[in-house]
Amino acid sequence: MIIEPADTFLKHGEIMADLARSFIRQSIFTKPKIEYKTDGSPVTNFDKELEVILRGYIHDKYPEHGIIGEELTAVNPSAEFTWLLDPIDGTLAFLTGIPVYGTLISLLHDGFPILGIIDIPMTSDRWIGQKNKKTLHNGRFIKTSDCSVLSEATLSTSSPDYYDETNINVLKTLQSATVQTVYGGSCVAYGQIASGKIDLGIDANFDIHDFLPLIPIIEGAGGLLTNWQGETLSKESGTENMIASANPYLHGKALEKINHLK
Amino acid sequence: MIIEPADTFLKHGEIMADLARSFIRQSIFTKPKIEYKTDGSPVTNFDKELEVILRGYIHDKYPEHGIIGEELTAVNPSAEFTWLLDPIDGTLAFLTGIPVYGTLISLLHDGFPILGIIDIPMTSDRWIGQKNKKTLHNGRFIKTSDCSVLSEATLSTSSPDYYDETNINVLKTLQSATVQTVYGGSCVAYGQIASGKIDLGIDANFDIHDFLPLIPIIEGAGGLLTNWQGETLSKESGTENMIASANPYLHGKALEKINHLK
Repeated sequence: MIIEPADTFLKHGEIMADLARSFIRQSIFTKPKIEYKTDGSPVTNFDKELEVILRGYIHDKYPEHGIIGEELTAVNPSAEFTWLLDPIDGTLAFLTGIPVYGTLISLLHDGFPILGIIDIPMTSDRWIGQKNKKTLHNGRFIKTSDCSVLSEATLSTSSPDYYDETNINVLKTLQSATVQTVYGGSCVAYGQIASGKIDLGIDANFDIHDFLPLIPIIEGAGGLLTNWQGETLSKESGTENMIASANPYLHGKALEKINHLK
Repeated sequence: MIIEPADTFLKHGEIMADLARSFIRQSIFTKPKIEYKTDGSPVTNFDKELEVILRGYIHDKYPEHGIIGEELTAVNPSAEFTWLLDPIDGTLAFLTGIPVYGTLISLLHDGFPILGIIDIPMTSDRWIGQKNKKTLHNGRFIKTSDCSVLSEATLSTSSPDYYDETNINVLKTLQSATVQTVYGGSCVAYGQIASGKIDLGIDANFDIHDFLPLIPIIEGAGGLLTNWQGETLSKESGTENMIASANPYLHGKALEKINHLK
């Protein structure tokens, strides 16, 4: 197999993000068909249709690559290069018209993300992270905040309803230790951690398609994203509790708070 | 005094919303100066500067009208016609880059809102409500959902942190009775109730500049917005707990749930 340069992977990732942006912007004029998954979260016909479009594009350009999508069966998931797709991250936001939903695209090499894209169709925001490169937001290099103490940090979480009785205390503890909490930012919030507007992000029960695309984006801007034990996440991770921070100092302090609870 | 037609009031309201949209879109490139109000909520220099701009516009067009703004001292607040301004509703969302913040503008006649505008600068969404007229979203007439039972309703709330120990049970009770909750939608969520994408919205400890502009928007699309006792809100209301619903049936059922708690 000829290994293509990272720029070529990025080019194809961006074309897919463009396709997704156009598709989602059109879809808001049509009433979606909604089903509820076993975990109670909604999924629409648009999620599935968009995943089919993106899979078709990958299959055409890279027939030997694997594809893992949120909605459909994985194809060749143990390939050296595997694409990870979440066509509409934040489906509840999408259904209710809160403009924080977006498309997450990642390329994994040997199970670890080397490319991550967050595209927000309703605001034209796009974050791009690549392993060992600086993160871009709408074409500009960005960096995380230099907040290094919890008592000055702004925290983000998608929804308190994702936490169960055991781990809601982790959220509450971090909320008590920080200045304020912003809710419901979905994937935008993780982009804004990379951009330095949010210091700390926490979520429970996320899957690989939710967190792996974020890792190159957060890390390439100076931050960290791990599970609540401080461990690196990869394709082998299952459903995980995750935490993202502006820098290693803040990450360490947040992990210490979490571990004190046990 | 010559009473102008409603269309003229709307024209000036829209010009102010245009001014606010341009101002806010520019402001994201500059770091704000942040202060915290006595209730712990943030306010920036941009909130204040934008309020000064909008007050100047009103003073120029309608020197005899009253002005009540969120950030500065009221001018002639008992005038027959009084403008109510919230230059950046959702300041925490603004600071953290979650694109649900917006400008709320309302015109009160004898203390009751006859015009309400929600403008979302980052998505170019604008909702317009006028007393006894149908509500518009981006130039199209909209209507609320026909959901009439709580068990099928999608609920919205800005932040669970706005509730105190007494009234958090009201939120929890409505959450148990409904399908799902979307968090952090700020003023966008109330626009989407008018647009039929959300069925029920609840918030605690809101002020008149937060809820009065929403009333003509929600009501002109078929919904209702009252306090938790089902009472109409006006300029004389102080800090209030508010609830908005897609229609009177759903509103009645939600109020019944709330009153059963007492």
